[in-house]
Amino acid sequence: MKTVGVAVVGFGTVGTGVVQLLLEDGDRLAHATGCRLVLRHVCDVDLERPRDVEVPKNLLTDDLERILSDDGTQIAVETVGGTGAAVDIMKRLLAAGKDVVTANKAALAERGRELFEAARRAGRSISFEASCAAGIPVIRAIRDGLIANRITSLMGILNGTSNFVLTEMSATGEGYAEALTQAQAKGYAEPDPTLDVSGEDARHKLAILAGLAFGAEVRIEDVYVEGIEGIDSSDILYGKQLGYVLKLLAIGRCADGALSLRVHPTFVPAGSALATVGGANNAVLVTGDAVGDTFYVGPGAGRMPTASSIVADIVDAALGRARTTFEHVAWLAGRCEAATMRPIQDVQTRYYLRFDVVDRPGVLADIAGVLGEHAISIASVLQHESPNPESVPLVISTHLAREGNVAAAMEEIQHLPTVTGRSVRIRMLEGPEAGEGEAVG
Amino acid sequence: MKTVGVAVVGFGTVGTGVVQLLLEDGDRLAHATGCRLVLRHVCDVDLERPRDVEVPKNLLTDDLERILSDDGTQIAVETVGGTGAAVDIMKRLLAAGKDVVTANKAALAERGRELFEAARRAGRSISFEASCAAGIPVIRAIRDGLIANRITSLMGILNGTSNFVLTEMSATGEGYAEALTQAQAKGYAEPDPTLDVSGEDARHKLAILAGLAFGAEVRIEDVYVEGIEGIDSSDILYGKQLGYVLKLLAIGRCADGALSLRVHPTFVPAGSALATVGGANNAVLVTGDAVGDTFYVGPGAGRMPTASSIVADIVDAALGRARTTFEHVAWLAGRCEAATMRPIQDVQTRYYLRFDVVDRPGVLADIAGVLGEHAISIASVLQHESPNPESVPLVISTHLAREGNVAAAMEEIQHLPTVTGRSVRIRMLEGPEAGEGEAVG
Repeated sequence: MKTVGVAVVGFGTVGTGVVQLLLEDGDRLAHATGCRLVLRHVCDVDLERPRDVEVPKNLLTDDLERILSDDGTQIAVETVGGTGAAVDIMKRLLAAGKDVVTANKAALAERGRELFEAARRAGRSISFEASCAAGIPVIRAIRDGLIANRITSLMGILNGTSNFVLTEMSATGEGYAEALTQAQAKGYAEPDPTLDVSGEDARHKLAILAGLAFGAEVRIEDVYVEGIEGIDSSDILYGKQLGYVLKLLAIGRCADGALSLRVHPTFVPAGSALATVGGANNAVLVTGDAVGDTFYVGPGAGRMPTASSIVADIVDAALGRARTTFEHVAWLAGRCEAATMRPIQDVQTRYYLRFDVVDRPGVLADIAGVLGEHAISIASVLQHESPNPESVPLVISTHLAREGNVAAAMEEIQHLPTVTGRSVRIRMLEGPEAGEGEAVG
Repeated sequence: MKTVGVAVVGFGTVGTGVVQLLLEDGDRLAHATGCRLVLRHVCDVDLERPRDVEVPKNLLTDDLERILSDDGTQIAVETVGGTGAAVDIMKRLLAAGKDVVTANKAALAERGRELFEAARRAGRSISFEASCAAGIPVIRAIRDGLIANRITSLMGILNGTSNFVLTEMSATGEGYAEALTQAQAKGYAEPDPTLDVSGEDARHKLAILAGLAFGAEVRIEDVYVEGIEGIDSSDILYGKQLGYVLKLLAIGRCADGALSLRVHPTFVPAGSALATVGGANNAVLVTGDAVGDTFYVGPGAGRMPTASSIVADIVDAALGRARTTFEHVAWLAGRCEAATMRPIQDVQTRYYLRFDVVDRPGVLADIAGVLGEHAISIASVLQHESPNPESVPLVISTHLAREGNVAAAMEEIQHLPTVTGRSVRIRMLEGPEAGEGEAVG
């Protein structure tokens, strides 16, 4: 039986999961794959910290050189994270002839081009199933399983922390701060949750998935992003009354040769597949011209789900499939051109708008007038009760409208003397009407 | 750029879809994969029938020999179907050195062992992504993406026709016959729907998925099967009142070293992920020890979804990945032992029971008495109204009970003088309690 040596660089939460699977499930993996994976090194700057897995002392090292110079190590897992040292480490591993497996979405999204070039120069591969949706094998699905399709739309709930917070706010009526505290208490949010709640993490993941799905070289700056920090629980409630559920959605669409990529809070229809994805789960809805809609759900974070995908990539590399894939898939092989992007101002979608207004005649007419001037057509109007007649929430949903027009109209409305508070704009998803592809289910 | 020759054997619905993708999307596929797929032959016994795709005359043939003897054809797609001629054709193609791609679940489930042996003898591969869930790349997910997991449970809605009929019955209250006529009118059911509604098609698919998921050699006779032909719309209604949706579910579970495989109508909780899968869609819920629950949904039938997966397999074969996979994955490589099966009598699940009884005192006590004697514990009792006091529907749901005990109790109850009609038994799924793995969502 073929034997392949593996090193794990970065002995944190995810690294521990990978080490655990390799040490404890070695025999089962060998039977399942016809290939024996041998853990040869576990490298970290801090070897003292206690871990949940017992590693033979002689495998532990704080010296990357030991891995680089070991001809018996063919595959290296990078779980250091970040866009600094981790990128350096991956390049050195590739140059030393190792196939690399990583879950590092930030590095791939921001410095993927140079990493892929380094891999090609070295004749090695980078695999990253765990980078976008942890345990859900959605990279394989898009990259290999749907290769016969022109992908027209990709929509994902790609950040478990944000989804947990929004699910909690929706279920309990809690405010953002309380829900975030809950998420932190339950281990679903980091002490500093910025990367998650700002949408930045989902943005990285969308950039990666878009590279594969649309076969285009995407710059991270081209992905529009809004987080969930500003979300008011009253809007979740009003949306619910309209039949919608709020999600932090990553949306990629390709139409008329232009690509639009955006991450922002989005109302999705309560009956749709995406609406059913609760808690810290992730989900991706991919629409292809041949297959139609396919939908993938599963755990989007956590030690063992992430390790599950990393070990799958190790097997791919061990069998030689990873290198074949890397040499052939357009984005990985460097055959993609820079994407033609549709500016966010030109994106069309439906909108949920809330204005806090003075409760007196003519207010709606004023606002409707401004919307009409900007070619924004109203679908529904709901005026909610308020104890304060100087600040009554007026909720308007629109038909398809151009983002640039809505921004301009909002700016103008904000200056009306009858509008008293901060105005809110949340995008709405409506299957066919929004041209977003019909949800499965 | 690498060029690979492809032949399509069987120019029916699915074959037409494959030919269409190869002829019309050749340039895009070449860009996406770095490999040019050249259609060299389309073989069918009937070349006169009109098709929706234009094929150059010189590619058409009714002579398989032309393909067998063509060294320029490396990959052959079999879309003939069935377990007779198709198996012969595949063996001849393999012996002639072609990698085979097929969607033929019947052949794989009933004669997979000899087909795989033929492939191994020839040093070639058989790929079959399209065989189990058409367009959903669930074979890749289980075979490669979840390889690091011990799969404990696999549950699938694997037959689009049955799911369409049950969804229709549930939505409209229609009887089975009317709903089936609807399905036929809309093209979701064949003129002879036996294979679909009997559960046989789902049984084939479960046997294949089980081979990959549980790494066990499964004989088709070991898969228990019940179809939807006997389903009464009143049971769908009563189930709905209890908070359940009826699905034809394929269930594979591995526990304590024994495998249970069964296909039967099953009540699933209305809020669960499986319950949301309507119409002709397919879905698979896979639970692994590392990853937890992952869930896959998409079109389970149709020309282009099926062709989507077949072309993905062609690409896999063209790049050489298919052969690597075939040589290594336990089931394909012939390294699996015969599965230790848990007899259906020993399976434990919850039950929905309906008895038509005479409306008089003591009836419930009699029935409850028999259930108690067979160690079957009652969870709820609902007596429904009926215009006929000689035949009142009594619906009982049970806690976990042994199948063999329930069968024996039903037999005994059927002989009670107060029981007037045919008794009904439908299995119920309840996440953690039934030990079936918790549904995603």
